[in-house]
Amino acid sequence: MLTYARTTTLAAVKGLSIAELDHLQDDSSNSIGALLAHVAAVERGYQILTFEERRPTTPEQTAWEPALTLGAEARRLLRGKPLEYYAHELSEVRRVTLEGLAARDDAWLERTLSAAPAMNAHWAWFHVAEDEINHRGQIRWLRKRLGSAATGPGASDVGRDPVPHDER
Amino acid sequence: MLTYARTTTLAAVKGLSIAELDHLQDDSSNSIGALLAHVAAVERGYQILTFEERRPTTPEQTAWEPALTLGAEARRLLRGKPLEYYAHELSEVRRVTLEGLAARDDAWLERTLSAAPAMNAHWAWFHVAEDEINHRGQIRWLRKRLGSAATGPGASDVGRDPVPHDER
Repeated sequence: MLTYARTTTLAAVKGLSIAELDHLQDDSSNSIGALLAHVAAVERGYQILTFEERRPTTPEQTAWEPALTLGAEARRLLRGKPLEYYAHELSEVRRVTLEGLAARDDAWLERTLSAAPAMNAHWAWFHVAEDEINHRGQIRWLRKRLGSAATGPGASDVGRDPVPHDER
Repeated sequence: MLTYARTTTLAAVKGLSIAELDHLQDDSSNSIGALLAHVAAVERGYQILTFEERRPTTPEQTAWEPALTLGAEARRLLRGKPLEYYAHELSEVRRVTLEGLAARDDAWLERTLSAAPAMNAHWAWFHVAEDEINHRGQIRWLRKRLGSAATGPGASDVGRDPVPHDER
């Protein structure tokens, strides 16, 4: 599920320029670039919570705050980066996730997290995918409005897997 | 995962009026009401595909087409309904899903679907949740722009479960 969600996120941003990644649809909008940074920051946060069984330190939290919180600070700070920058960040964080999950078993997944007793690791990693998919929906919506140059297969409001239907 | 996704969808639309459900952010936007109808139609489609192991008939497909495809026909036809209408539709379709899943076992989940050999039931139901979450992200974005009367706890662009952080 994590892998599938990521594939669709990358498809939704394929080919975007720096200007397109930085574009703000309106005054309270997050750029597509900021949403990609958010996806990576959330995943790093849940690595710490589930693999390291601790909460982020203050320096970590401070470094990730604009991407985690989005909004004004993200609009000010998260810009000027090419797609390769975000793609690399997403790829590096995902590598650590897949290594971490591969080193653990299914029983670990169901254990309560000592650093966040309201959840277990299974829910935490579902939530990472869920948050990414939520923002992918927004990215598709935003991309569709960038203008014809930026629209492409990833730009549809509708998922690319509608219910298969009888062709008659 | 299906239940959690639904809870967050309903939270994101709580208290919306007919006018708010019908509001179009721009000429190519889908209303929040149409997105709710889409979520219900996708779920019905996958019930047929996985529980009945067939593709929708032409009459079924025709009835659901505006909600499945969204866009111009959805903007024309899917309007004027109160939140209770969509909530009831979602609740009725979900009841059938939960009954269908409860009547089957985990081995069934992993079997290839005869009506759609590229997927198994497990992927199909993941996709139903995934598509809903994608559109919930759009609903949150749209609701945030309805004006102050419509903003509320469901209106945030960011998921309501950020990474828990050290309070120091």
